[in-house]
Amino acid sequence: MTSPLWDKGNTDVDRRLMEFTAGEDVILDRQLFIYDIAASIAHVRGLGTITVLSQDEVTRLVESLTSLREAFSSGSFQLDERFEDGHSAIEFYLTQALGELGKKVHTGRSRNDQVLVAQRLFLRDALHRLARNCAAIADVALHRARQERDIPMPGYTHLQRAVPSSLGMWFAAFAEAFIDNGNLARSTASWLNSNPLGTAAGYGVNLPLPRDQVSAELAFERLQVNPIYAQNSRGKFEFQALTALLQALLDTRRLAWDLSLFTTEEFAFVELPDAYTTGSSIMPNKRNPDVVELLRAATSPAVGAINELISLLSLPSGYHRDLQNTKGPVLRALNRGLTAIELIAPLLDALRFSPDALRNAISGPMHATDHAVDLTGQGVPFRDAYRQVAASLDQFANRKPEDSLQARISPGGCANLLLEQLQSRLQQLTQAL
Amino acid sequence: MTSPLWDKGNTDVDRRLMEFTAGEDVILDRQLFIYDIAASIAHVRGLGTITVLSQDEVTRLVESLTSLREAFSSGSFQLDERFEDGHSAIEFYLTQALGELGKKVHTGRSRNDQVLVAQRLFLRDALHRLARNCAAIADVALHRARQERDIPMPGYTHLQRAVPSSLGMWFAAFAEAFIDNGNLARSTASWLNSNPLGTAAGYGVNLPLPRDQVSAELAFERLQVNPIYAQNSRGKFEFQALTALLQALLDTRRLAWDLSLFTTEEFAFVELPDAYTTGSSIMPNKRNPDVVELLRAATSPAVGAINELISLLSLPSGYHRDLQNTKGPVLRALNRGLTAIELIAPLLDALRFSPDALRNAISGPMHATDHAVDLTGQGVPFRDAYRQVAASLDQFANRKPEDSLQARISPGGCANLLLEQLQSRLQQLTQAL
Amino acid sequence: MTSPLWDKGNTDVDRRLMEFTAGEDVILDRQLFIYDIAASIAHVRGLGTITVLSQDEVTRLVESLTSLREAFSSGSFQLDERFEDGHSAIEFYLTQALGELGKKVHTGRSRNDQVLVAQRLFLRDALHRLARNCAAIADVALHRARQERDIPMPGYTHLQRAVPSSLGMWFAAFAEAFIDNGNLARSTASWLNSNPLGTAAGYGVNLPLPRDQVSAELAFERLQVNPIYAQNSRGKFEFQALTALLQALLDTRRLAWDLSLFTTEEFAFVELPDAYTTGSSIMPNKRNPDVVELLRAATSPAVGAINELISLLSLPSGYHRDLQNTKGPVLRALNRGLTAIELIAPLLDALRFSPDALRNAISGPMHATDHAVDLTGQGVPFRDAYRQVAASLDQFANRKPEDSLQARISPGGCANLLLEQLQSRLQQLTQAL
Amino acid sequence: MTSPLWDKGNTDVDRRLMEFTAGEDVILDRQLFIYDIAASIAHVRGLGTITVLSQDEVTRLVESLTSLREAFSSGSFQLDERFEDGHSAIEFYLTQALGELGKKVHTGRSRNDQVLVAQRLFLRDALHRLARNCAAIADVALHRARQERDIPMPGYTHLQRAVPSSLGMWFAAFAEAFIDNGNLARSTASWLNSNPLGTAAGYGVNLPLPRDQVSAELAFERLQVNPIYAQNSRGKFEFQALTALLQALLDTRRLAWDLSLFTTEEFAFVELPDAYTTGSSIMPNKRNPDVVELLRAATSPAVGAINELISLLSLPSGYHRDLQNTKGPVLRALNRGLTAIELIAPLLDALRFSPDALRNAISGPMHATDHAVDLTGQGVPFRDAYRQVAASLDQFANRKPEDSLQARISPGGCANLLLEQLQSRLQQLTQAL
Repeated sequence: MTSPLWDKGNTDVDRRLMEFTAGEDVILDRQLFIYDIAASIAHVRGLGTITVLSQDEVTRLVESLTSLREAFSSGSFQLDERFEDGHSAIEFYLTQALGELGKKVHTGRSRNDQVLVAQRLFLRDALHRLARNCAAIADVALHRARQERDIPMPGYTHLQRAVPSSLGMWFAAFAEAFIDNGNLARSTASWLNSNPLGTAAGYGVNLPLPRDQVSAELAFERLQVNPIYAQNSRGKFEFQALTALLQALLDTRRLAWDLSLFTTEEFAFVELPDAYTTGSSIMPNKRNPDVVELLRAATSPAVGAINELISLLSLPSGYHRDLQNTKGPVLRALNRGLTAIELIAPLLDALRFSPDALRNAISGPMHATDHAVDLTGQGVPFRDAYRQVAASLDQFANRKPEDSLQARISPGGCANLLLEQLQSRLQQLTQAL
Repeated sequence: MTSPLWDKGNTDVDRRLMEFTAGEDVILDRQLFIYDIAASIAHVRGLGTITVLSQDEVTRLVESLTSLREAFSSGSFQLDERFEDGHSAIEFYLTQALGELGKKVHTGRSRNDQVLVAQRLFLRDALHRLARNCAAIADVALHRARQERDIPMPGYTHLQRAVPSSLGMWFAAFAEAFIDNGNLARSTASWLNSNPLGTAAGYGVNLPLPRDQVSAELAFERLQVNPIYAQNSRGKFEFQALTALLQALLDTRRLAWDLSLFTTEEFAFVELPDAYTTGSSIMPNKRNPDVVELLRAATSPAVGAINELISLLSLPSGYHRDLQNTKGPVLRALNRGLTAIELIAPLLDALRFSPDALRNAISGPMHATDHAVDLTGQGVPFRDAYRQVAASLDQFANRKPEDSLQARISPGGCANLLLEQLQSRLQQLTQAL
Repeated sequence: MTSPLWDKGNTDVDRRLMEFTAGEDVILDRQLFIYDIAASIAHVRGLGTITVLSQDEVTRLVESLTSLREAFSSGSFQLDERFEDGHSAIEFYLTQALGELGKKVHTGRSRNDQVLVAQRLFLRDALHRLARNCAAIADVALHRARQERDIPMPGYTHLQRAVPSSLGMWFAAFAEAFIDNGNLARSTASWLNSNPLGTAAGYGVNLPLPRDQVSAELAFERLQVNPIYAQNSRGKFEFQALTALLQALLDTRRLAWDLSLFTTEEFAFVELPDAYTTGSSIMPNKRNPDVVELLRAATSPAVGAINELISLLSLPSGYHRDLQNTKGPVLRALNRGLTAIELIAPLLDALRFSPDALRNAISGPMHATDHAVDLTGQGVPFRDAYRQVAASLDQFANRKPEDSLQARISPGGCANLLLEQLQSRLQQLTQAL
Repeated sequence: MTSPLWDKGNTDVDRRLMEFTAGEDVILDRQLFIYDIAASIAHVRGLGTITVLSQDEVTRLVESLTSLREAFSSGSFQLDERFEDGHSAIEFYLTQALGELGKKVHTGRSRNDQVLVAQRLFLRDALHRLARNCAAIADVALHRARQERDIPMPGYTHLQRAVPSSLGMWFAAFAEAFIDNGNLARSTASWLNSNPLGTAAGYGVNLPLPRDQVSAELAFERLQVNPIYAQNSRGKFEFQALTALLQALLDTRRLAWDLSLFTTEEFAFVELPDAYTTGSSIMPNKRNPDVVELLRAATSPAVGAINELISLLSLPSGYHRDLQNTKGPVLRALNRGLTAIELIAPLLDALRFSPDALRNAISGPMHATDHAVDLTGQGVPFRDAYRQVAASLDQFANRKPEDSLQARISPGGCANLLLEQLQSRLQQLTQAL
């Protein structure tokens, strides 16, 4: 049958099939390549231990893999469309260098566990990088909280001016958030730090692979024991890594929202250094906070990737080609997200707040709540104090914001920010990294 | 302050800021470039109409833009990292060719409406391409439904064998689905076919731009009148285009699921041509239906992109830099999705079903429902007929599937597939494209 | 085997199984019940036409179904946990009233097409209600745009003050958005307005059901011909309905964001009537714009439901019990979304803008763009005019906003809002409803 | 202005506003009520410590709160639409019982931290319940893996028969998955186990609240120090809890997919007990695996809720009413998800596999891979062995599956499942709960 509506000739279909199945795999593998090589080295050493390879063969394979890593790092070896993916590039390189011996690297493993282990190592590194960046952000935020703890700043609820607060409390909020985010990144890295190499295509192999040795060499905390589970965990561990990323990005989005408001002419609380703003192509009078807006937008690739990933995972047990498509969203979201997060510490450091503008935005009625709470100290039930104060809001016109901050003594409040407690948590985090 | 945890020196921060804000913009713009040029030509002609440009200036600008389009199409002009984005590439090219005159192309427009119009034209084309492919799929499916209307095939519910059905009904199901999908793509293209060019940065300009003329030249159905709305619609129209894509991909996923089951050794209903299967790297005995699995997975980028997009759109009115990040997910999902969808018509055409296997999978008890319904013709309430039949399921062991198909006379049923009605809907669709 | 970790005894497992499978089905069915009854009446009449039921039987069944509808509407018949779902409630009622005859309503149909048709009718009604509400919003917005077209208001990009704009342009932006949304709701209703009743469990029946007659009685535009497709479309049409809802909610979110900013003390552009604000439980000085914030949040259930739905739809052809779980998210999101959208027209009507505050927020440099464009009229290339104007931004200190608005003559601009064109589109929409 | 399109009179608008803002809050609060009471008791004791309340007042308030908890648990106190939410129900009850004193419970706290602490306690409990259920599933799965470790079963990749595997390996895969899931639930509970009570509306209060004492009483691991962060974490911690739930549900979905296939007539590997199947309303011959399908579908509410939640969290710092809408999706998804997960242990226990069917599905060519690996032991490079074996696949027709299992000696393979290692991990998990 020939259908005039779609038939472009078989050759064309074949070409399109090839493009469709290849996808962007080899390009994505650039980020996984050094991990694939590292795992290949460990696998080769394992094959030596069980004498599938002689020690001489091991030495030559490891040397060749090491030189490939160097060639890739220096740029003299390009991972590009000549290869179907990173795995075939490794085999090609080894076979060119070592002939028949090069083929032996694939003994006792499958692409299924080969790609799993490379991705696992990549995720672990990415999560450690995330944790370090969270710690760096918390460090800057704590530093500024300490320095600017006494600068009054309006506290908002519903975006309405609510009660006097301080710049220190604002900075400390992000310090605590990113300490939590760093701890999450760290524990997520630990949770997924198990070794899938040696599970082959999902059912093990008839070789006594020394999996514990390989795990130790690659610094895994434990074995991913079951081969079926190893396959079933594809996408699962990636998803969890992305949630740790997303947590940091959700706080990034909130921070960016604050700065987006604080840099309007209406709020005018803060100025961004020139490097963080951009001009307009049509309006000569504009300096736009593009970086802040792009930081706010940086959450979205992670949201997209999480959904792309989950929607791939409605499958029975075992490997399916669908799972190959977990690679793209994970790499893209981690790249974009980490690039964004790495800009936050210098941004926080560079913010120039205007103490006058902050102070002027604290109006009299914002003292009402503190006064109502004071009345409860004299035995007035809070609900009654509330009504009493609400009736004469203009009595607080001359109250000084500084006095309010001094009185806010609840633990965590402006007069009691407990920065040393946060500092100590940060230390625990950084020591564990 | 110097923070040992993050400070890599200012130069480094500047470089990272630049990379972060540039993103992959210029690469993505390769897909929008011809639309940007087309809209620029229309804009230049509009400026001629209102005498902001002389006719000679118009002629020279249009000639230069036309030669840029040809240079880009032939590959002699590369859109690459030399440029910030496609817009600056156009201005650069014109200024090189025409000096001062080249700068005038930007009169009365902003990048904000320039990118909007390019994306709008891109979306419209993508939706038409989607509609054409849906029609092509429906065409093949209808053809096969007609040819194989009498081949018995088990009908499943809950993946359990339920009642006799036919291969023709299975093909016709996808025909009708893709007719609906094609119609949706077409009406979505029409819904978003409005012209945003001439709204500038979101507030119009003090020039009597001949927007209707420009709309007509670019084949828009109507003006997007309001400049604020033009900005606010960024992402909105892209989202709707992606839902039309997703609809086609949801049916693609279902089709792929069917084929994934039908190609198991357990079902063994269908064979895929070799071009659609792949060998295993570790298992010599395998031919895997990779293309089918990748088609099933092709839904996911659209799911991810839709969520990435929506999560960008929590903003007040007017342009924000966040919106630039709508570009990546939309282009990626449409590319991947359309590439997948274009493979379906040839795949459907190439499927080799085994009539014997289909027939053998129809077991006796599957005739029970028809028999129960027959009893209702004799006045037995269905609930009673149901109980009566359930009590002696083995009475149907020798019933022929063909007889069942002949008796299934409800409109749409195996004996009455109404293929001509579907054919006529398909004709209406293709005529409208 | 007894496992101390989980075993609570079989009875307990049975109870939990029952609760798990029942879910909240019967509660959700309250919203579908009148549609289920309407479709049952049409089905009964169809059975009469093909003489499966006598005319007397038809009459009695229709009378009984009609009285059930009335009893349900008046509250004298409660659809509650006594029943597994709405379908069994109907059969129970009929059997109680008519004995054996009551059972015959189920002849020639399955729960699979019964629930499909009820949901289809529900979706169609919900989309029409959505379209009517979009029209109502556009109507109010157009009215206010007409009345307040000359009130200056700052135009923002990047949340930075950009150029003078008008309150009329702001209202007109939402008018045009909701006209588009209304048209989308309407065309979506039409797209899914096809009749699945008569496709039984997914493979038709051996009865010559008069499906065209039933379609006409239920005001469907066309037959959903193919029984397999009818099952495969479950969730598919619901998804499309939700995207039409989400479009309206995305604009609702943007409107709510504007109002959330405009009601801050910093912007202070608008006041909300008391009915739209709420006090604080701890702060006597607060009036919070809760309704605006809840409108902003009303997008989220639709976002959630869309994802819940899509993630259910990774299945082979035919009915699966998974599909029953499409009901909850669809009903919840439509209810919440429509409730929100119905509040927007009165809210827009009730907004009290402060012309003075709007005017005072237009600072001198905002006139720079207009001036640069003016210079291009004198032959200066825009890029040069831009640089020239940027160099002396303080020259515009005394320019009157009104003059700027008058000069903004591009179609859609402040001096040329083309409200009559929007009005005419709105008329076309409302006439079609 | 009166708009005929929307105006239903002010009264109607007021009623709709009320319904819209109230939402389903009080119904949802039924699940949070005991946590709200527990936190209120701790708060009251804290107020006693700082002498805002006398010891007598503390005693009476605690007694009254305790009796409220009992009345609620026994059903004699109903939390229903009489109350706006759970918080007002508590205050109402106390004021009725204790008069003026009842109002004092609100001293020094806001609804903002009151709802945060109740939700935090709820999440912690839900995660512990999740962890316990994961352990119970792993326990059953390990038990069956041990018992059925030698039963051959085909191993699939791409849903194609690949290599011989064992039922034991299949069960062990889910054991390891749910051990990981249990550990994740536990560490997530620990990560979010910080006390927000005492942060008031987001800026602390002017009282020396003994927050450490309150934390200890409520078994929190640490203080959530910063009041702004406490507000900013709303939704953030809920999201992380939902990801732990989703992990368990993703494995549930995979398990359900396996069972959905294994119960087809085509696979026929397993039979479900009657309690887990359902009949058809139209087909007398059907027993459908509804519970399995609903388990597969149970992932979706969590997917929806995660997206609903994230889409709410694009906000500046501080409380916004939007955040109240985090409650619904979180409670719904946790309820549905946990109900599903609680059914898995008994389901796994009840599965009746057919060893014959499993064995018969292992065809000769499935031994090819093992043989190719064997050849590598004789020095043949794997790639060559692969080609050699692929050339004569029929040589393995008589190989016994048991022999293959015995030879699969890689750690985790069929001959070396390392169940004791999994058992020991499970013990660590259960001891920590």
